[in-house]
Amino acid sequence: MNTLIKNANIITMESEQKVIKNGYVGITDDRIVYVGEELPEDFWPQRILDCRGGAVLPGLINAHTHSPMVLLRSYADDLPLQEWLFNRIFPVEDKLTSEDIYWASMLGTMEMIRSGITCFADMYYFMDEVAKVVSKVGIRANLSRGLQCFDDNIDPLQDRRLLENEQLFKDWEGESNGRIRVFLGPHSVYTCTPSYLEYIVDLAQRLGTGIHIHVSETLKENEECLEKYGKTPVRHLYDHGIFNCPSIAAHCVHVSEEDMSLLKEKNVSVVYNPGSNLKLGSGIAPVTSMMERGINVALGTDGASSNNNLNMFEEIHLAALLSKGVKQQPTNIKAYEALEMATVNGAKALGWDKDIGMIKPGMKADIIIVNLNKPHFYPMHNIISNMVYSAQAGDVETLLVDGKIIMDKGEFKTIDEEEVYYNIKKIGKELAYR
Amino acid sequence: MNTLIKNANIITMESEQKVIKNGYVGITDDRIVYVGEELPEDFWPQRILDCRGGAVLPGLINAHTHSPMVLLRSYADDLPLQEWLFNRIFPVEDKLTSEDIYWASMLGTMEMIRSGITCFADMYYFMDEVAKVVSKVGIRANLSRGLQCFDDNIDPLQDRRLLENEQLFKDWEGESNGRIRVFLGPHSVYTCTPSYLEYIVDLAQRLGTGIHIHVSETLKENEECLEKYGKTPVRHLYDHGIFNCPSIAAHCVHVSEEDMSLLKEKNVSVVYNPGSNLKLGSGIAPVTSMMERGINVALGTDGASSNNNLNMFEEIHLAALLSKGVKQQPTNIKAYEALEMATVNGAKALGWDKDIGMIKPGMKADIIIVNLNKPHFYPMHNIISNMVYSAQAGDVETLLVDGKIIMDKGEFKTIDEEEVYYNIKKIGKELAYR
Repeated sequence: MNTLIKNANIITMESEQKVIKNGYVGITDDRIVYVGEELPEDFWPQRILDCRGGAVLPGLINAHTHSPMVLLRSYADDLPLQEWLFNRIFPVEDKLTSEDIYWASMLGTMEMIRSGITCFADMYYFMDEVAKVVSKVGIRANLSRGLQCFDDNIDPLQDRRLLENEQLFKDWEGESNGRIRVFLGPHSVYTCTPSYLEYIVDLAQRLGTGIHIHVSETLKENEECLEKYGKTPVRHLYDHGIFNCPSIAAHCVHVSEEDMSLLKEKNVSVVYNPGSNLKLGSGIAPVTSMMERGINVALGTDGASSNNNLNMFEEIHLAALLSKGVKQQPTNIKAYEALEMATVNGAKALGWDKDIGMIKPGMKADIIIVNLNKPHFYPMHNIISNMVYSAQAGDVETLLVDGKIIMDKGEFKTIDEEEVYYNIKKIGKELAYR
Repeated sequence: MNTLIKNANIITMESEQKVIKNGYVGITDDRIVYVGEELPEDFWPQRILDCRGGAVLPGLINAHTHSPMVLLRSYADDLPLQEWLFNRIFPVEDKLTSEDIYWASMLGTMEMIRSGITCFADMYYFMDEVAKVVSKVGIRANLSRGLQCFDDNIDPLQDRRLLENEQLFKDWEGESNGRIRVFLGPHSVYTCTPSYLEYIVDLAQRLGTGIHIHVSETLKENEECLEKYGKTPVRHLYDHGIFNCPSIAAHCVHVSEEDMSLLKEKNVSVVYNPGSNLKLGSGIAPVTSMMERGINVALGTDGASSNNNLNMFEEIHLAALLSKGVKQQPTNIKAYEALEMATVNGAKALGWDKDIGMIKPGMKADIIIVNLNKPHFYPMHNIISNMVYSAQAGDVETLLVDGKIIMDKGEFKTIDEEEVYYNIKKIGKELAYR
């Protein structure tokens, strides 16, 4: 199957300069085979997508989320963190069934698609349901089962969560034309004992996979870790071997100079979640310092209960703005760097940099088309600035993953939108009586 | 002319509790005559607007902008402030004609309407053109001519800018069914001599109008003012009588405890412009401190050259998030407070609190309808949180000002969208040769 995208302003993400005006992208099956200003020769498309002067970008990569948490969107806001988590979020989570998670993840996936996300890193429970959603919808994801163990007397070999994560790996790793990858998901230093962490490292190495974990999200986490182990969370995880696996470290809001050195040494990818970190009052991660050290910084939305959306354009915008304002330095984090976080850096974090994050021959055809015919894009002085500072999620019109159209001019091709809303409403009503 | 809005979730902004589910709004001519859960009795509508479960809010009020600066959107980003302003912005502004300003302001107005803004406070030049746009489109605005004078030897009576502002007042104050109001627009302490400021106060008092001014936007402004006059900008303006007039003080990023006392004493309305202040690296205004003192804090987008959009939903979101993150306090600026900034507080800042900012009988029918049937609004736990943390400008479907439909399900009724784009493109091409 050959597809030709035409009349496209292509932000390739190969370099800031490589923006192709009025160009073409040729796709054969799931791969990009041509990108250029001229019509490709000897390429016979069965399908033509006319962008009508729109912007074409690699699909955005949401490197840290908990997709089913859309169910808790706007359920409890503007509260102290502990009250929010223990009194409001956890009691509802205890009541959720696998079917709830299926529909919740479907809703989250719909929202992500509408904001141009073609790939996400997810950590939650009933992850088999999330895998089914990813497989059915045709999107790409790195999935991990959230793991926690507070008791050193529990045998990790018998730990239900760990067994589920291992089973998830066996069932789904590499499935759906390689669109699904499975990592292990130790939740954090404060929810996993040291021996549990070490067993996870051992399992990850046996499976040959990576780790997705929350790191130094709050000052409280750091203080407790220092008190309990005499070390920062980063040093603690380093010492227990976590970072010997390919690692996605979400947040890293409160990291020291030494922490950053350790993260760099182990090639850990940090995921910046500016919206969630602001909303929960966690703080602002020292992203410019991490970037200066050459740490790979990707971008994430976190869960919708602490954001309250899965809108990557908003995170891109926040990433570009925040550091400028906080440091009173308008040259911090240039527009292109913010866009890199959401594409190439995300691909690297999820271990997919050979396949996604750029519009380039040989890459997977994970592509979004943004409608530029909106007042907030005129005049068209700089397409990259426009994407970072002016674009809204709702400007994304068409989205392809593996060369397949998942959303076509705003219409979902693999999701029955009304069916999802119906089920979400039903769950909401039922939850009140559980 | 009677209009009935039905199937509406009405966020009245009278109080946080007063949200009416599945309600009705009755409008006669330009005023709201009924708000309630029941169908109004003895009210015979000629026109019915079915919200299909959407949210109905008072139109948003953008309390500080320079609408024609959309022409410079994405023209120069991520640069040091001085280079941005003196080497990039000013040289282009010098070339603009009155016709350019007309089309630029029209584009800015289109963008504002798309983000739910029904009223804005504008400061620029060729303001007669902006008034024509406001009048033609049917939106509401408080207009001021940007005033500056660096030379104490110039007679204010002969100052071109001041004469233009006075003429603007004479021509447009109260025009278009009262939709246009004219303030005087002294640019700032660093662009106006003390005697010029005093003359402006004198003129404002003679005309019986107010003042719109930039205050303490950057640390540099404060340092220079302290060096030159031995006072902070707020104290300097206070001493020269500016705040004896109803005043809109944009920015106030760097204000001292004493400054805040003075602003409160004189009932000055502060306009918070979080997006612009972040992007230009100006800093983050101490909004919670100002609010604790009872200062009226409204919200603005500033010009699109430093934002780069006129998207009030983005500013509402930033207002709610920023203070939480910077102070590491998730209870700071609750969702409803952010929404107040963009509605009731804006109305107060612009001197229109008797007429706009709430959905309430007796108020002008400046109303927006937001489509809630989007993935990012499900499930509907809290409509106010949804508006503040999840909504996008693009969710605004219908907009009324003075009871007249300006945008109907995304379609402009008083603007020829393609004509505006055509003229904006033409200006862009011509500018290169001027």
